[in-house]
Amino acid sequence: MIQIFSNAVEGRCYLEQLKQRSRETGKEVEAAVSQIIEKVRVKGDEAVREYSLRFDGGVPEQLEIGREEMERLSNTCDPDFLAALRRAAKNISEFHARQKQQSWLETREDGVILGQRIRGLERVGIYVPGGTAAYPSSVLMNAIPAKIAGVREIVMATPAKNGIPNPDIMAAALVAGVDRVFLMGGAQAVAALAFGTNSIPKVDKIVGPGNIFVATAKKQLYGTVDIDMIAGPSEILVLADETANPVYLAADLMSQAEHDVMASAILLTTSVALAEQTAAELERQSAGLSRNEIISRSIRDFGAVIVCESMAEAVALANEAAPEHLEVCAANPMEYIGRINNAGSVFLGNYAPEPLGDYYAGPNHVLPTSGTARFFSPLSVDSFIKKSSFIYYTKEALQAAGDDIVRLAEAEGLTAHANSIRVRQKD
Amino acid sequence: MIQIFSNAVEGRCYLEQLKQRSRETGKEVEAAVSQIIEKVRVKGDEAVREYSLRFDGGVPEQLEIGREEMERLSNTCDPDFLAALRRAAKNISEFHARQKQQSWLETREDGVILGQRIRGLERVGIYVPGGTAAYPSSVLMNAIPAKIAGVREIVMATPAKNGIPNPDIMAAALVAGVDRVFLMGGAQAVAALAFGTNSIPKVDKIVGPGNIFVATAKKQLYGTVDIDMIAGPSEILVLADETANPVYLAADLMSQAEHDVMASAILLTTSVALAEQTAAELERQSAGLSRNEIISRSIRDFGAVIVCESMAEAVALANEAAPEHLEVCAANPMEYIGRINNAGSVFLGNYAPEPLGDYYAGPNHVLPTSGTARFFSPLSVDSFIKKSSFIYYTKEALQAAGDDIVRLAEAEGLTAHANSIRVRQKD
Repeated sequence: MIQIFSNAVEGRCYLEQLKQRSRETGKEVEAAVSQIIEKVRVKGDEAVREYSLRFDGGVPEQLEIGREEMERLSNTCDPDFLAALRRAAKNISEFHARQKQQSWLETREDGVILGQRIRGLERVGIYVPGGTAAYPSSVLMNAIPAKIAGVREIVMATPAKNGIPNPDIMAAALVAGVDRVFLMGGAQAVAALAFGTNSIPKVDKIVGPGNIFVATAKKQLYGTVDIDMIAGPSEILVLADETANPVYLAADLMSQAEHDVMASAILLTTSVALAEQTAAELERQSAGLSRNEIISRSIRDFGAVIVCESMAEAVALANEAAPEHLEVCAANPMEYIGRINNAGSVFLGNYAPEPLGDYYAGPNHVLPTSGTARFFSPLSVDSFIKKSSFIYYTKEALQAAGDDIVRLAEAEGLTAHANSIRVRQKD
Repeated sequence: MIQIFSNAVEGRCYLEQLKQRSRETGKEVEAAVSQIIEKVRVKGDEAVREYSLRFDGGVPEQLEIGREEMERLSNTCDPDFLAALRRAAKNISEFHARQKQQSWLETREDGVILGQRIRGLERVGIYVPGGTAAYPSSVLMNAIPAKIAGVREIVMATPAKNGIPNPDIMAAALVAGVDRVFLMGGAQAVAALAFGTNSIPKVDKIVGPGNIFVATAKKQLYGTVDIDMIAGPSEILVLADETANPVYLAADLMSQAEHDVMASAILLTTSVALAEQTAAELERQSAGLSRNEIISRSIRDFGAVIVCESMAEAVALANEAAPEHLEVCAANPMEYIGRINNAGSVFLGNYAPEPLGDYYAGPNHVLPTSGTARFFSPLSVDSFIKKSSFIYYTKEALQAAGDDIVRLAEAEGLTAHANSIRVRQKD
């Protein structure tokens, strides 16, 4: 049963508490991971094979799977699934193509040239979990922005339980343009990508979801490589006025709740009747769903309906919560865009349920969690670029600027800075 | 005396080692900082005052300095310094204005609307060290991009030794458009900005340099707020062909070396004669510089001249080193832009010495260190924004996409995702 708060004051307290929920990493996990990382750093492939044998119950003959084998596996997939995957990839590509920034330069009459160069990272690693949580959609969402950013080589790591890779994942890798695939998982895979081994190339950034060992390895290797955000438990917040449909609302709350017993699903509404109808719908619909057990637990522990005085109050609460996913089910949903300050992805109207964004519409589904939408952004093409600035000055332009620079450097006591201008002023 | 490597093989080994140099944070510092953070979180202003008294030798009557007092202090600065500061600010503003990204949306004929909204962060905190390392240029470099990004309120924290703030810093805060200034420093200042107190507003991101306590506090609070990079020791790498001027090269190497005994200054050149002349110039010029002692130590410990076979070889080495600052002193410097893959800021030609970029030309001086230019970028307007995507679909558009979404959700075993589409397909 979902809890219902009858006013925003209580609701606000609850939402603040929710942000604190997180999976604590035990000291044992930290220590185990740091040992794995060290061993992979020193022994390379040998360590990867050893850990794969221990944790995945087997090691493939070749760590890297060939293109032909990937294609063979992909051809075993349901053709309708493949077609859907391709259409999703097209939408995702089109959306992310609009994010691409261009290098630019500015040339001045005095001969000065200033600019900013934008390049894709050289090589990126994408981690893809195997087993029950094998999500081809996640391959598309991580690889496509990297491809559009101009990353030269996209390397995927995914564990193959008993040596057999997941065909849907292989299909998604082909559709998304992944360049090389290594059948390995866990902290050892992350470490191998960060350092490189004889058979695995060293990457510049590692992205993608994973279990606590994968997440901890990424965190520990941050700085050696760049990483994406460490995702906290997932969440949805729905704003609904009295025009919303409780059947849809309940379905959408559950689509988030089914991810994980730690997932959170919150409804903010101005209508007491809608609050009660949605609560009843949750009970009715969840009974027929295969992941009913997870749904019931996450709804019980981290779900809530909060009745607000007005939509303005609901919007204020949503901005404080800064949710990963925000649905606006209201009469004039577009009016809300300008009022929503903090949210990863915003779903407007009765026909933009969260799964539309998870799979298909085009925006990324890798989003900031736990209220970090206040300052973090969705995964994007910008996540896979590096920028450099450049400066060209003529002798005359430096002469003109020289006294100012000397003055600023001396004010900071940095006399060798001033000296590097002065030796040029003398000539 | 600077060490000279006569070939790229030895040089490459040395450059790899250099990347590993870093200031280790001791367990004691970690523990002390985490205690300060916890106390500020719980006791707010009281804890800030207590620590200011203990570490800065005094607490100002009011933590916040008023605008009039800032203006009074600023008016005590050298007018030539103020004029130089304003000209620098103008250049920095103009460069960063070009970085500003726009929100966009795409409207389709079927009524679908997709978009990406870009907003400045709500509130940003800028830490500015006091004492001997009081750098007004750093105020400009951190505050101006935030201002251009549209940050609503820029809050500065800077310690006031014996209660007296640095006038140059106050002047820079006024020029850069800082909104509020609090006279506090250290880990307590960082914690106060991250959590907010009765008198200090809570911010979304904290940027700016600081000592080991400040850096450790930022690292520990990452996630509660966003932070900028944790800067490693600073570095310059100079590429020089036989046309370069050894007097300039030596001056530029020292302008980096004077920062800190951990700073690194490297010259890669194709000319043995130039290598030797530059080494001699280093000795000659350093004798007359006020920070000679620091310069000599950093040049001895982390400086080197590496003689390369060709400029192509030198460029390859530079790309591997991925330096924070890269100077190209060569006959046709512009030809190198396309060949430099990894560098924070690139200085082209004989009249673009590093201090030109540190203070004046326009690009940011907050740059990725320790080889992280492979995947990190200079501080920019992008560092102060947050993005949200948004999706609006019509009933018909969702009907058209529905089967694909259901198929993808079911392939992942996420039946509640499929259900949220199905309840809408039924209507």
